[in-house]
Amino acid sequence: MLNEDTICAISTSGGSGAIAMIRISGKDAVRLADQLVRFPGEGKRLADQKGNTLHYAEIMDQGKLLDEVILSLYKAPRSYTGEDLVEISCHGSVVIQQKIMELLIRAGAVVARPGEFTQRAFLNGKMDLSQAEGVADLIASGSAAAHRLAINQMRGGFSAEIKKLRSELLEFISLIELELDFSEEDVEFADRGKLNSLTERIISLLDKLISSFEYGNAMKNGVPVAIVGPTNSGKSTLLNRLLQDDKAIVSDIAGTTRDSIEDTIVIGGVQFRFIDTAGLRHTEDKIETEGIQRSLKKYEQASIVILMIGPLEDDYAIRQSLAFLDEKKKAMPKKSLILALNKADLLDPTDKNRKLEHIRTILPEGDHYLALSARDGEGIGELENILLQEANKGHSEEQDVVVTNLRHFEALSHAREALARAREGLASSLPTDLLAQDIREALHYLGEITGEITTDNILSNIFDNFCIGK
Amino acid sequence: MLNEDTICAISTSGGSGAIAMIRISGKDAVRLADQLVRFPGEGKRLADQKGNTLHYAEIMDQGKLLDEVILSLYKAPRSYTGEDLVEISCHGSVVIQQKIMELLIRAGAVVARPGEFTQRAFLNGKMDLSQAEGVADLIASGSAAAHRLAINQMRGGFSAEIKKLRSELLEFISLIELELDFSEEDVEFADRGKLNSLTERIISLLDKLISSFEYGNAMKNGVPVAIVGPTNSGKSTLLNRLLQDDKAIVSDIAGTTRDSIEDTIVIGGVQFRFIDTAGLRHTEDKIETEGIQRSLKKYEQASIVILMIGPLEDDYAIRQSLAFLDEKKKAMPKKSLILALNKADLLDPTDKNRKLEHIRTILPEGDHYLALSARDGEGIGELENILLQEANKGHSEEQDVVVTNLRHFEALSHAREALARAREGLASSLPTDLLAQDIREALHYLGEITGEITTDNILSNIFDNFCIGK
Repeated sequence: MLNEDTICAISTSGGSGAIAMIRISGKDAVRLADQLVRFPGEGKRLADQKGNTLHYAEIMDQGKLLDEVILSLYKAPRSYTGEDLVEISCHGSVVIQQKIMELLIRAGAVVARPGEFTQRAFLNGKMDLSQAEGVADLIASGSAAAHRLAINQMRGGFSAEIKKLRSELLEFISLIELELDFSEEDVEFADRGKLNSLTERIISLLDKLISSFEYGNAMKNGVPVAIVGPTNSGKSTLLNRLLQDDKAIVSDIAGTTRDSIEDTIVIGGVQFRFIDTAGLRHTEDKIETEGIQRSLKKYEQASIVILMIGPLEDDYAIRQSLAFLDEKKKAMPKKSLILALNKADLLDPTDKNRKLEHIRTILPEGDHYLALSARDGEGIGELENILLQEANKGHSEEQDVVVTNLRHFEALSHAREALARAREGLASSLPTDLLAQDIREALHYLGEITGEITTDNILSNIFDNFCIGK
Repeated sequence: MLNEDTICAISTSGGSGAIAMIRISGKDAVRLADQLVRFPGEGKRLADQKGNTLHYAEIMDQGKLLDEVILSLYKAPRSYTGEDLVEISCHGSVVIQQKIMELLIRAGAVVARPGEFTQRAFLNGKMDLSQAEGVADLIASGSAAAHRLAINQMRGGFSAEIKKLRSELLEFISLIELELDFSEEDVEFADRGKLNSLTERIISLLDKLISSFEYGNAMKNGVPVAIVGPTNSGKSTLLNRLLQDDKAIVSDIAGTTRDSIEDTIVIGGVQFRFIDTAGLRHTEDKIETEGIQRSLKKYEQASIVILMIGPLEDDYAIRQSLAFLDEKKKAMPKKSLILALNKADLLDPTDKNRKLEHIRTILPEGDHYLALSARDGEGIGELENILLQEANKGHSEEQDVVVTNLRHFEALSHAREALARAREGLASSLPTDLLAQDIREALHYLGEITGEITTDNILSNIFDNFCIGK
């Protein structure tokens, strides 16, 4: 399975910058570097140097100086990939980066596939598969929350949880297999009550992980929020106001740019994904109804709904909107509702309080309400606090073992199905060998998560989604 | 003049990538790094380590792991800046990059100004000013030719040429000053004939450098090319064809992206800048004439003109276009003309040859002509060869001491003016002290190039145009 090629790739982000870095890994990494460069002073060779050292060198191209560079030398197995690894830090001109790659390829290196450095780290036992996926998530993380979950996964926090589950399952199967060994004697070594409680415990552990996926996925990919409300209630003004706050924070530190994803906002370290929805109106017009149906489909993807109402909306209209959402909410009880009385700057304090008090009386328990002005910023801080509170609902910062990965979610779900069958089998006195088969299946799925069991298909699915150079 | 601050900046290009690098330089660089990280194993401190070494570490943020990083340690004076310098190679997530910058700033580092690392290298005597400018040009270089000139400048090739000039001038002034010392005795120590030939030699050296600026500037910023011709002669088809060739080469190596500047094409390592020109037509229409006037202004910036004609253009029209350009060319004798008979695929070989032969007879000596088809690619290779040949006209690859920098060009021109005055003074027997003044002025301007003489103004003009992190 191990590749004999020596691979190379540009590991820093594309385009020109002050410094760029090109990585070489594999058995010929040091020889290739020695072949490309010239050291000032006599007879120095990288091959003779100790690992974990830095070396000034001159990269030559057909006898002419291409660049002055720094070489970072790592010797196997003390490197990221576990192989000999050389990093070339060069001046960040695109011409130089390309030329160095060209020279390396001409000397016999091959261009690394996306994630191939990390794949080699996995294959060389430097990390398990779920940790490798954590590396990709870490690089892609666009918020503090996504970062926190990814780094925990990269460090093996999630793998440890999976190992715990596997050891529970192994206890289970050892009891079962003892019985199989003596199957002809028709005795039950494994106490059925004990097996029952073991199954329950494992299933509840799996359930905890499986149910964390909704939170984990939201933290990783953004909490989906829908802003709904009548036309002109100020939905886009609110969105712009929230975006503006976010951008101000980001631009505080010079030299960083942000991969801008439209309508994605980081509040208090959590990313929110704002879903575009059409104006919410009660109408008999067929075409408009269809538009609203589409809009409601999107609304259904949201886990938080901000219902905006204007200051002049009458109670009837408010009640209608609420009833409308309430009906939808029955199907999705986990959805959080925030009722926002917009344009509060147009109301005098008495009116505002009267209206808020009224909203409180008609709003179901547990939903939020507040007055704000998207235009002048009043109440925005309060809204952000509520969003953050709802995003983190039911999860503490400490609980870092969270499923963020669809592949893990599916494997855990399959494992749970197999165990549920085992539980049924126990209840209906299924033959022991069939019971064992279910448990082995559960073990198989857990093994896929950490990479104890892999296929080329699983590996390529994972590493194809990596960035190049890692 | 030296700054006591410890500075930090993200040195890799913006946005997320596999790996990013943050640089810290200054007397507290090592202490700050030690403060931010935790090393696995007991009691290790960066401060106790040797220079030019690599260290795995964990960056902590309020007791929580922010990232696993590699620290590159350089100790003063063996570093790029000549100060203690630490480079943090982290996972390239924007969140992590920002957070590390935040932690450094909170610990007392300040954000580096553009080019501040290189400015410190200059102030610490690691390079002269023209070499520092070479670093900026090297990073910005978008073609092999620009790269070649920049690296020569960074390595001090240009500085050596300036030093040669200065030593010639110093010989001159030592002769003059000898005379001044004995001025009361009214003798001429300095042989006037010798002074005369010395002046001539220095002026001719200056002239050689000054005249190289047109070439140097074209190589650095792109050779300006205008494609002119009647409407529908295929100007934009040709441009797209050339662009396509360029892009195909660039995309050969994965992982590199190109800062796309519209209508800038690299051919054989030389960058060409294509100037947008309106269709060339002889018209009485006032408004159109004005458009053509504007287009001709742009044409005047070009150093190479491609005049495109269609296969059905009659001789009269061709002669008219040529006469038109010829008139303009009188003012700019250095301009190169390439006459391109486009849509050659529409002509049979006999017709094509007859037309080309005819063009040859009416075309002034030294201008180029060829048949091509922008649509199917015929003749494009030949056109590229001609472009390359014209761009390099009068310059050999070996002659690498070329002025590419407007600041240097101006300083050299000022120095030449002062020397021309000295030459005049010699002819008109100007008093020796006035002669000395002119020569000191020339020395002053040359000193500005290498930075022996600097002002805050010169420094900030230079380093403000650097990228951040270098």
